[in-house]
Amino acid sequence: MKIVITGGGGFIGQMLARALLARGGLAAEPGAKRNLNQLVLLDQAFPSNRIKDERIQYEAGDAGNTEPLARVFAANVDAVFHLAAVVSAGAEADFDLGMRVNLDAARRVFETCRLQPVAPRLVFTSSVAAFGGDLPDVVNDTTAATPQSSYGTQKVIGELLVTDYTRKGYLDGRTVRLPTIVVRPGKPNRAASGFMSSILREPLNGEPAVCPVPPEAKMWILSPARAVDALIHAIELPPQDWGANRTLNAPGTTVSVAEALAALARIAGRDTAARVRFERDVAIERIVLSWPARFVTERAARLGFRGDNSIEEIIRAHLRTLHA
Amino acid sequence: MKIVITGGGGFIGQMLARALLARGGLAAEPGAKRNLNQLVLLDQAFPSNRIKDERIQYEAGDAGNTEPLARVFAANVDAVFHLAAVVSAGAEADFDLGMRVNLDAARRVFETCRLQPVAPRLVFTSSVAAFGGDLPDVVNDTTAATPQSSYGTQKVIGELLVTDYTRKGYLDGRTVRLPTIVVRPGKPNRAASGFMSSILREPLNGEPAVCPVPPEAKMWILSPARAVDALIHAIELPPQDWGANRTLNAPGTTVSVAEALAALARIAGRDTAARVRFERDVAIERIVLSWPARFVTERAARLGFRGDNSIEEIIRAHLRTLHA
Repeated sequence: MKIVITGGGGFIGQMLARALLARGGLAAEPGAKRNLNQLVLLDQAFPSNRIKDERIQYEAGDAGNTEPLARVFAANVDAVFHLAAVVSAGAEADFDLGMRVNLDAARRVFETCRLQPVAPRLVFTSSVAAFGGDLPDVVNDTTAATPQSSYGTQKVIGELLVTDYTRKGYLDGRTVRLPTIVVRPGKPNRAASGFMSSILREPLNGEPAVCPVPPEAKMWILSPARAVDALIHAIELPPQDWGANRTLNAPGTTVSVAEALAALARIAGRDTAARVRFERDVAIERIVLSWPARFVTERAARLGFRGDNSIEEIIRAHLRTLHA
Repeated sequence: MKIVITGGGGFIGQMLARALLARGGLAAEPGAKRNLNQLVLLDQAFPSNRIKDERIQYEAGDAGNTEPLARVFAANVDAVFHLAAVVSAGAEADFDLGMRVNLDAARRVFETCRLQPVAPRLVFTSSVAAFGGDLPDVVNDTTAATPQSSYGTQKVIGELLVTDYTRKGYLDGRTVRLPTIVVRPGKPNRAASGFMSSILREPLNGEPAVCPVPPEAKMWILSPARAVDALIHAIELPPQDWGANRTLNAPGTTVSVAEALAALARIAGRDTAARVRFERDVAIERIVLSWPARFVTERAARLGFRGDNSIEEIIRAHLRTLHA
């Protein structure tokens, strides 16, 4: 089978690629697996330490342009992970860029799927940024999407298109609303939620970090490994398990900044946790605090998705990747 | 002031134009009114009996194209009613046409507003088709939009864009989710809900009509006059009354086909109501019965919107327009 990952050069794209190569394929139906023959990573740039595997094909290009998409989809594609996106603070700072990538490029990918002889399975990543404003204390599976950012707006529009394209039979789509991914490795990105990784990652590297929100601020988080598991599980579930509702709140864990730093202190010592200083950033705070931090994800549990057990587990998993 | 109506050649567009001309302006702030100097009707076609008024300007063109929009918005525009749309059954039959008109054209209108020196007020018309699937018995102001048709999907995307463009200060938008408009005059259109007008209008004209859904099927309806009132009220409300939530479920009345025909019989006689015959149309039924028929519209009531009192009142209002 042929699988395409847009945003395949990004952090989650690379982790997903490694996971798919290791698995060797995807379950096509309960119990059966189809072998992965070709894994196309489409992105504007790739990390210098490329994954070496004869099944991988690197395609440099913008998922919003027809030319690279036409190339990638020239032969039949069985499954697509559409991860390419401009993150929250980026889409807020440059409205047109966000619309072009998060809306127009997504739509072009869906249209390209529509041209395939058999509608491919597609996983689209949405976000907790789908929610905002006057929210119930706990978000559940029927809470209305009320985005308060351009990023969230564009993601919810993508969700709606995935559902309608699926209903029309143009693709077999599944949207996973991911929590904030913690701990992201590497350098900070433009995600407004990026600080939640920074305040754990930088101190563990012996570096200082800045937290732009108060200690009591809570976030809904998921580890990178569980996020990749969720994307793979989402694409493997048979269509009838999804039914008409193609948007899912993924599982996660509610953690406050204070709880995260306390866990960091328990694992790596008080001196490590003390490398974080608080410096309020109103722009970041406005975006991040509009997102819900408490969810009940019954449907995800019923469909077999699983989250992390604790912030300690998440930090320890990050430490293991550093020493891998 | 200058007002633009896209879809100004349509039935609601024409009624709205007459109402705006008769009012002579719009309330700019509580108690104050700004005089209407220019009313631009943009549409691909206009009725042959044109409204004669020196303030009216007819612009033939597609609201999805830049050229007519650039012409209409060359001078400052104060208020826009974006009514141009492909209706439900039309957007279901021709997916690409629906996307082009209901999504791309709407977005182009919003982008054109963004170029204005002062963000214009804009009213966008959405629909009960925003809802569908597993719904609560009664839809309220916080029920999640879950469209089950391409038309509904495209309308909800428009709602999201209106909210985000407003939040960014690119326009001062207000979305009104209209019930099914009954009784529409003239010929049937491609709206899946069109039969609800047909089964009242045609018998009153001495003609037969076909009802594609069973007598117990219920709809959420609003008369044309109250719909026009709602659009004007929506644009006149000051921004602070709308707040961050720019999407409103308009008031309406829940009426079953059987109740509508009983009212018709009471007003025009049993022979008139007997001109309707039932002939099931699965495609129409699938779309229409996915829409909710019972609402509680508390926010609309609080903001001063009002609906009709009964189906009798709606039929009698239609009879008055016939004899006007």
